[in-house]
Amino acid sequence: MKDCKKAAVIMGSDSDFPVVSAAVKKLKSYGIPTETRVMSAHRTPRETAEFAASAAASGFGVIIAAAGKAAHLAGAIAANTTLPVIGIPVKSSTLDGLDALLATVQMPSGIPVATVAINGAENAAILAAQILALGDSGLAGRLEAERQEMAAKTAAKDKAVRDEAAKL
Amino acid sequence: MKDCKKAAVIMGSDSDFPVVSAAVKKLKSYGIPTETRVMSAHRTPRETAEFAASAAASGFGVIIAAAGKAAHLAGAIAANTTLPVIGIPVKSSTLDGLDALLATVQMPSGIPVATVAINGAENAAILAAQILALGDSGLAGRLEAERQEMAAKTAAKDKAVRDEAAKL
Amino acid sequence: MKDCKKAAVIMGSDSDFPVVSAAVKKLKSYGIPTETRVMSAHRTPRETAEFAASAAASGFGVIIAAAGKAAHLAGAIAANTTLPVIGIPVKSSTLDGLDALLATVQMPSGIPVATVAINGAENAAILAAQILALGDSGLAGRLEAERQEMAAKTAAKDKAVRDEAAKL
Amino acid sequence: MKDCKKAAVIMGSDSDFPVVSAAVKKLKSYGIPTETRVMSAHRTPRETAEFAASAAASGFGVIIAAAGKAAHLAGAIAANTTLPVIGIPVKSSTLDGLDALLATVQMPSGIPVATVAINGAENAAILAAQILALGDSGLAGRLEAERQEMAAKTAAKDKAVRDEAAKL
Amino acid sequence: MKDCKKAAVIMGSDSDFPVVSAAVKKLKSYGIPTETRVMSAHRTPRETAEFAASAAASGFGVIIAAAGKAAHLAGAIAANTTLPVIGIPVKSSTLDGLDALLATVQMPSGIPVATVAINGAENAAILAAQILALGDSGLAGRLEAERQEMAAKTAAKDKAVRDEAAKL
Amino acid sequence: MKDCKKAAVIMGSDSDFPVVSAAVKKLKSYGIPTETRVMSAHRTPRETAEFAASAAASGFGVIIAAAGKAAHLAGAIAANTTLPVIGIPVKSSTLDGLDALLATVQMPSGIPVATVAINGAENAAILAAQILALGDSGLAGRLEAERQEMAAKTAAKDKAVRDEAAKL
Amino acid sequence: MKDCKKAAVIMGSDSDFPVVSAAVKKLKSYGIPTETRVMSAHRTPRETAEFAASAAASGFGVIIAAAGKAAHLAGAIAANTTLPVIGIPVKSSTLDGLDALLATVQMPSGIPVATVAINGAENAAILAAQILALGDSGLAGRLEAERQEMAAKTAAKDKAVRDEAAKL
Amino acid sequence: MKDCKKAAVIMGSDSDFPVVSAAVKKLKSYGIPTETRVMSAHRTPRETAEFAASAAASGFGVIIAAAGKAAHLAGAIAANTTLPVIGIPVKSSTLDGLDALLATVQMPSGIPVATVAINGAENAAILAAQILALGDSGLAGRLEAERQEMAAKTAAKDKAVRDEAAKL
Repeated sequence: MKDCKKAAVIMGSDSDFPVVSAAVKKLKSYGIPTETRVMSAHRTPRETAEFAASAAASGFGVIIAAAGKAAHLAGAIAANTTLPVIGIPVKSSTLDGLDALLATVQMPSGIPVATVAINGAENAAILAAQILALGDSGLAGRLEAERQEMAAKTAAKDKAVRDEAAKL
Repeated sequence: MKDCKKAAVIMGSDSDFPVVSAAVKKLKSYGIPTETRVMSAHRTPRETAEFAASAAASGFGVIIAAAGKAAHLAGAIAANTTLPVIGIPVKSSTLDGLDALLATVQMPSGIPVATVAINGAENAAILAAQILALGDSGLAGRLEAERQEMAAKTAAKDKAVRDEAAKL
Repeated sequence: MKDCKKAAVIMGSDSDFPVVSAAVKKLKSYGIPTETRVMSAHRTPRETAEFAASAAASGFGVIIAAAGKAAHLAGAIAANTTLPVIGIPVKSSTLDGLDALLATVQMPSGIPVATVAINGAENAAILAAQILALGDSGLAGRLEAERQEMAAKTAAKDKAVRDEAAKL
Repeated sequence: MKDCKKAAVIMGSDSDFPVVSAAVKKLKSYGIPTETRVMSAHRTPRETAEFAASAAASGFGVIIAAAGKAAHLAGAIAANTTLPVIGIPVKSSTLDGLDALLATVQMPSGIPVATVAINGAENAAILAAQILALGDSGLAGRLEAERQEMAAKTAAKDKAVRDEAAKL
Repeated sequence: MKDCKKAAVIMGSDSDFPVVSAAVKKLKSYGIPTETRVMSAHRTPRETAEFAASAAASGFGVIIAAAGKAAHLAGAIAANTTLPVIGIPVKSSTLDGLDALLATVQMPSGIPVATVAINGAENAAILAAQILALGDSGLAGRLEAERQEMAAKTAAKDKAVRDEAAKL
Repeated sequence: MKDCKKAAVIMGSDSDFPVVSAAVKKLKSYGIPTETRVMSAHRTPRETAEFAASAAASGFGVIIAAAGKAAHLAGAIAANTTLPVIGIPVKSSTLDGLDALLATVQMPSGIPVATVAINGAENAAILAAQILALGDSGLAGRLEAERQEMAAKTAAKDKAVRDEAAKL
Repeated sequence: MKDCKKAAVIMGSDSDFPVVSAAVKKLKSYGIPTETRVMSAHRTPRETAEFAASAAASGFGVIIAAAGKAAHLAGAIAANTTLPVIGIPVKSSTLDGLDALLATVQMPSGIPVATVAINGAENAAILAAQILALGDSGLAGRLEAERQEMAAKTAAKDKAVRDEAAKL
Repeated sequence: MKDCKKAAVIMGSDSDFPVVSAAVKKLKSYGIPTETRVMSAHRTPRETAEFAASAAASGFGVIIAAAGKAAHLAGAIAANTTLPVIGIPVKSSTLDGLDALLATVQMPSGIPVATVAINGAENAAILAAQILALGDSGLAGRLEAERQEMAAKTAAKDKAVRDEAAKL
């Protein structure tokens, strides 16, 4: 994987790490060089803006941003880069993540955020890989293979559940 | 009103002006020096951050920020100043303003936004005046007087409706 | 801090105290003289109205009101004073706080309530301090300093998470 | 109908009258003495409280209160009387009446509001009549008769729709 | 309390009893003769309809009906009587009671249900008592006295919380 | 189509007819004998229950029930028959049909309602046809043919949109 | 039960089995030959489509499909068969099943899904039996008998709760 | 732009074209070769699956899919390709697009859909361009330039609104 673009995984608070770590692990499993950071659109707005503004030049190809509540992080990063930005709405203690979902996905015209499901950290990583795989046929092959494995796992579960159901 | 602090009214898009103008008019009716601006957390993030960061030094005492959808504007301003920031969630073409409300009010710990009702521009101006009135007894008196007028108007409407109901 | 205005923290029920105490602690940490009360818009409406009506004369500069469900407390107080009133919607056993949020924030024209996030007691206190700080440069400095500390803490967490992520 | 108790119909704003007038008309159709008023929990809190506190002594048996948005009116009245209070949540320009519904129905323990459907003014009047009919057998008979008429009307519509459907 | 009208408390499933028992206890505390029943709009529709149709003749003055999910019970009873029917929406395992609230409160024109808060069993009983108290001055006095006690309790809690807050 | 079972289309109010007529037309297009009725769970509960209880004996194989708001109609019918009952939640003037959807679909264990989309009258008819087609191979063939036509229509629209897009 | 049509119970993930097993047990209790499968609209789309396309020929009369989140399974099956398809929206870790409900029930015109309550597995099975019973009088009788038992059980609970309530 | 990857814009119904055409126009403005299609996850599932399965081999780099209600289209495509798939939830006549949003974004683990705002067609095109720009520095430059224009336009609007506000 020569001159591979890096992925960034940014979270608004270290309390998001238990959710977000699934994205980091997944990216590493693909061999994608990954930087994991805590930056807040509200508590460290300048650092966040600077990171985003220099991300392309720093070799990043895609940025994943995870935040809860009035989740502005992905949007704040997207406002400062034209790299694709993937948003993970994180469920917090109230409203079941609906606030974070709407604050992440309902971006105004001009500045998109590629939003995945509430707490969908693994899917954020897969989406990042799909994006990077456009320029990396090895990674593309890997994603295809993973799909086959996924189908095989589902088939195995199908068999297990059929057996279990037979006993009901 | 010597050394009176100014109010800023910021909107994310000029399409918000028909809603937001009610705030500007109200502030002017109080004699509060007001600056009205279009700045976007997403389209002009740097200008927004710089405005907020220098707002206190520029003589502002309170900032009103209005935005729709994934309404980050008030939060983005609050992240760059310790002045009180009032957020107006603006109703847009989908979800009836719920997205803007949650994106404005559900701020993380450390960075509050004083949120008013969806499209509540007039109340944002009154709240701003209430805040500035703590250091301006003339303005405080004016707010008190306005309350009396409000009660009087309600009493007048009460009479009108009683009459109308009598005809039903 | 000579002739400093006081803050009131009112809750609708003593069962709100575990949430609301964060506001009291925060206000005390700023050195703001704070009165903490249980008053109910529904169970003690007269006391609530009287408290609000005399709050300015009693030396209060800002009132924080916390309530759950059909949360009328902040509005009932705002109806009886022109001081800025901050509402904390409290999450109760059903609807995840959405009822309290809407009942607090959707105030009719004329009577604003500065609403913070569901259970956002700490932010209510910070907002109160921001309001009082307009007339108290010492407090303003303190809030600025706190922001720096917040950014520093986030930077420390950033480092910790980077290290943890490296082990994944 | 000797010594018949009166019904009050209160609305928070005269803009609610087009919705609320259906309740007034219905009450009048039953011959129930009705007073129609505009009083606001927020703009005329004292008048509202005083009206409620003296309602029983003034000969009222039931109070209907209609309000939109953060609809506190019914609750504010209920807080000041032990008469049954019926709340009509009024749909306003945002959130389709959900805010008014939750602010009316989710009352805390001790102070009930008998809530009807959003904009359910006619049902509020019928419910008021059902309550007053407990002590007024003439009114009870009238309500029973109305039910028969309602069923007859539905039967007539049934016939009309059957005919119309036959032509499809 | 001569010739006192009875209250019925109906629940759709015995699993609602832990919530509904608060209504029964409250009614008994007022000395209101109360019948508690399990009847289902869906599993025993005929019994439900017959109970409702004969309720007035059987000496009932008010019927409380509690149900969860697609909560039709209160409406099914209201369809078969012109007595006032009070609906308690019961929170079940999904949607936090919103389904039961809407299915109870959004009744079509002609057939009102007096809806209280989700799981608001105690308030349903108080509302029932308020209705019956129109014809029972002893009960009316009792409700007034209870309000005083409630205010006194809130005052006591106010003192307790003030003390606790002083230690923070 | 010998001994073909009939379909019933019931609506709670004739105001639902503009929505519901699509179901009637569709059923007729399949040659399914259809009875269209207005019956209300609330205004004509007895007729509704009797209709449902005798529906199987009257030769019906499936019942479609459409209602808005606290939409109990489908459930009230399902409570009185073991025939499959299809519910159409009808959008009314508030809450965009969510109330009708939840009141129709969230049925308690034991009494299912086969719910289709809000205002999904045509789909209700197709579902009814699918159910009746299990015992009617001619109808089954017709449904299969309709699917082919549907696909062909989509293909035609595909071509039209491609052409239109080429001009953009 | 000669030449009885089979029922299929499909779930999107084996993690749905604890919910879905209630459907399987219920179908077995009716003596309906049942196949239980794990197939995913997203992870094994081809298998899902092929299963659905050949289901009628394989002797199935009805298909139950259960899925959570963006629950496409029932729709994906319905798109490939004209057999009646019953959808069970499964509650997952966020949004309380509302996402699955809307993704299952809001099907576009032409392709209905008979949706039951969130996690309503037992009702899905009863609905399937109601559908199959149209061509199986033995099964129809069994469903009728079950209704009687259900009513009897409710009557027994009625008695038990009456006794319990008497002790309150 | 040699060997440039193509973009596909798929919509579930030609009625979505007025919304979706904004995406097509935007992609064309970037010079990205674009194919616009009507394909339905429900009405033409096979064609949809085949299109997706062969999209990478056909030279597509990214697929935009727009659908309303139970919006399965983006997910159905994502299930059959490892190319990045962008979902546009389309607002339809009920529920204000919330159904389409949840059905698009809440994808299960393994199969991500990059979801943009309700009716966010233009942002879908920009996101597609951001993805393709990773391998196309000319396009990347164009996106950067567009950002500058956007900021300039906002600055112009800022000036216009300031002027307009001065006249209030």
